[in-house]
Amino acid sequence: MSLIVHKYGGTSMGSTERIKNVARRVAKWHAAGHQMVVVPSAMSGETNRLIALAKEIQEQPDPRELDAIASTGEQVSVGLLAMALKSLGVDAVSYAGWQVPIRTDSAFTKARIESIDDARVRADLAAGKVVIITGFQGIDPHGNVTTLGRGGSDTSAVAVAAAMKAAECLIYTDVDGVYTTDPRIVEDARRLKVVSFEEMLEMASLGSKVLQIRSVEFAGKYRVPTRVLSSLTDPLMSLEEEMVSGTLITFEEAENMEQAVVSGIAFNRDEAKVTVRGVPDRPGIAYSILGKIADANIDVDMIIQNQGSDGTTDFSFTVHRNELAKTLDVLNTQVKPAVGAREVIGDAKVCKVSIVGIGMRSHVGIASLMFKTLSEEGINIQMISTSEIKVSVILEDKYMELAVRALHRAFGLEKAA
Amino acid sequence: MSLIVHKYGGTSMGSTERIKNVARRVAKWHAAGHQMVVVPSAMSGETNRLIALAKEIQEQPDPRELDAIASTGEQVSVGLLAMALKSLGVDAVSYAGWQVPIRTDSAFTKARIESIDDARVRADLAAGKVVIITGFQGIDPHGNVTTLGRGGSDTSAVAVAAAMKAAECLIYTDVDGVYTTDPRIVEDARRLKVVSFEEMLEMASLGSKVLQIRSVEFAGKYRVPTRVLSSLTDPLMSLEEEMVSGTLITFEEAENMEQAVVSGIAFNRDEAKVTVRGVPDRPGIAYSILGKIADANIDVDMIIQNQGSDGTTDFSFTVHRNELAKTLDVLNTQVKPAVGAREVIGDAKVCKVSIVGIGMRSHVGIASLMFKTLSEEGINIQMISTSEIKVSVILEDKYMELAVRALHRAFGLEKAA
Repeated sequence: MSLIVHKYGGTSMGSTERIKNVARRVAKWHAAGHQMVVVPSAMSGETNRLIALAKEIQEQPDPRELDAIASTGEQVSVGLLAMALKSLGVDAVSYAGWQVPIRTDSAFTKARIESIDDARVRADLAAGKVVIITGFQGIDPHGNVTTLGRGGSDTSAVAVAAAMKAAECLIYTDVDGVYTTDPRIVEDARRLKVVSFEEMLEMASLGSKVLQIRSVEFAGKYRVPTRVLSSLTDPLMSLEEEMVSGTLITFEEAENMEQAVVSGIAFNRDEAKVTVRGVPDRPGIAYSILGKIADANIDVDMIIQNQGSDGTTDFSFTVHRNELAKTLDVLNTQVKPAVGAREVIGDAKVCKVSIVGIGMRSHVGIASLMFKTLSEEGINIQMISTSEIKVSVILEDKYMELAVRALHRAFGLEKAA
Repeated sequence: MSLIVHKYGGTSMGSTERIKNVARRVAKWHAAGHQMVVVPSAMSGETNRLIALAKEIQEQPDPRELDAIASTGEQVSVGLLAMALKSLGVDAVSYAGWQVPIRTDSAFTKARIESIDDARVRADLAAGKVVIITGFQGIDPHGNVTTLGRGGSDTSAVAVAAAMKAAECLIYTDVDGVYTTDPRIVEDARRLKVVSFEEMLEMASLGSKVLQIRSVEFAGKYRVPTRVLSSLTDPLMSLEEEMVSGTLITFEEAENMEQAVVSGIAFNRDEAKVTVRGVPDRPGIAYSILGKIADANIDVDMIIQNQGSDGTTDFSFTVHRNELAKTLDVLNTQVKPAVGAREVIGDAKVCKVSIVGIGMRSHVGIASLMFKTLSEEGINIQMISTSEIKVSVILEDKYMELAVRALHRAFGLEKAA
């Protein structure tokens, strides 16, 4: 008998019929003798509906009041799930974050969990109840309701699992695990049975939407064994079958980990490239450009500086595509005249493709194989960025699918490891 | 400068545009120097939507979980109203019942308020903030969210006004006060400027839907000056104009009260009449009939027993029309064989018409004028029930409008007092 935390996303909770299916699955785990804590999201669409209402009232909603409003979606879904379990004859009780309590700081709309008091939950578990806790929210030191930001239910679930030293945290979602790449792009993409925490972290930050990045950080920090699996399978499938489905995130570079050097290919079209041409090449030039961008609250991802032969340099970086216009405005009005740059160019038609793999640490030549593969397909690389376990390149966006398929093949990801 | 409590119903909060109007009205009161506490209902339709969701999951929803779910509607509306005030430049803060806290017993779905801790609210008011508190809900001694039952936001507002010794509690709704009778039935029905607490209590219990009966009881118990007025007027009308609109509920039979003997005519079609004929006339017969009805949790309103000449009696009473079928079932299966009654007859085609007036205490002949008026219209009276300040009759329901109009005229209610 173990303590198990289940997390269900908004799609899994998307209708009363689906909530009944979630209850059947939880009841099965409970019947197998496990102590069960369940953290559901709001029904899909509900949080967006609430935020839209708030924006009708105030264009920039007051953060404390927005959290009070946005947190109600989960408060409804925990109550509905408790009822669904009770109607299956399983005793269950729901709690809002403030009732547990899940204590956070006061950073409304993006609060961080500071501690979880599990006394009340443990007493219910000892009494044989399933405990259902709202995701996405907590209470600050002044008794205000806070939310953790979008996707925060994943983080709540992992944090509860960490605080209660759960045997495993199962994240049920609408995909059945983490893949070598998006199966919609590469037909023979393969589900990873195991992925390392660090790879998962890179994939989340590179645009793979399976898990919210802060939940992965939390899982890593507290070494919570976390599994991503599908809520769309038969809820009454055997526990044995269920425990080999999905993808397990591990914290050990164990012998039994898959041996591939590269585990997956991540990609996105969320970025845009900006180039400031003909900047006088002198110390401090990077700061005079990027300082203004930071002042405007624009996040920068990749940065490249090329030295020219005429005493000037070209300075390129990427920003989120939604912020391209704002970035160009800052560059043209504030930076270009101040630093005496020749011209400013924006390009939204780019994509980022990355290879990720913990095996890259101990293998040379991985980047070369990537560049060779792209070159053989006639794809020009515009920018490169590397870390210990990933290589990212910026390409013209029309080549994205071609690049992903070629790399997936080149690194042999379609074959079982 | 006074402490004023405003309460706004679901229709007044029915859209973001309406919420902005509520904010304009509250801001006006605040600007006039008053300390403002506002208790809004959920946006109209929202509580019904939540309860319907719950019933899709569980036909008889678990009461604790139902309250957790149903209470979220007001949590959204307080947040939206706080934002609307802030966008007008008025500092405001919202609280759910548990945050105040408003302490209740644990009778989920129909909890009673036990105490209100106003320290936090007073501190905010002293800092110049408008405080917005969810209606309809509180927290029980075990930290569970409770609701007060439908219409409970009126009760919350009056309870907050009582606890904080507010100068006045203004209940804004979609009608502009209490009328001598429903203006949809009697064209020249007249708005009462003042009505006594006791009359209001009778009117609420007789089916006038202006205020929830428990809120009137609360207002009476703590002598909270309460005014019913319209939220559909211009929110920026002058305070002087606003304070003479609506209807004030008073607790003193003051000289300046309107002198009419009868203040209003209430009516409804919610009841059904049941008659048990030919019951042997012996002691205990009322109990043997009504005991079974009470066991089945059916509320009985009027009761009449007529002695016959043959040693039997006819026993009649009224129940809510929705419970007629259940009542007849209990009578036919349990009561009729046990007491040896001749037959059981149900009649849903009845209505109740009542005259209400605190002046009846000191005036004779009021009931006679009622009976004479109905007789002149050829309307047969089926049952009569009286109290110190009201007379109710049961009539065939097709006569309801005719009876109300005739009585309104007979008691001179269309003329200003």
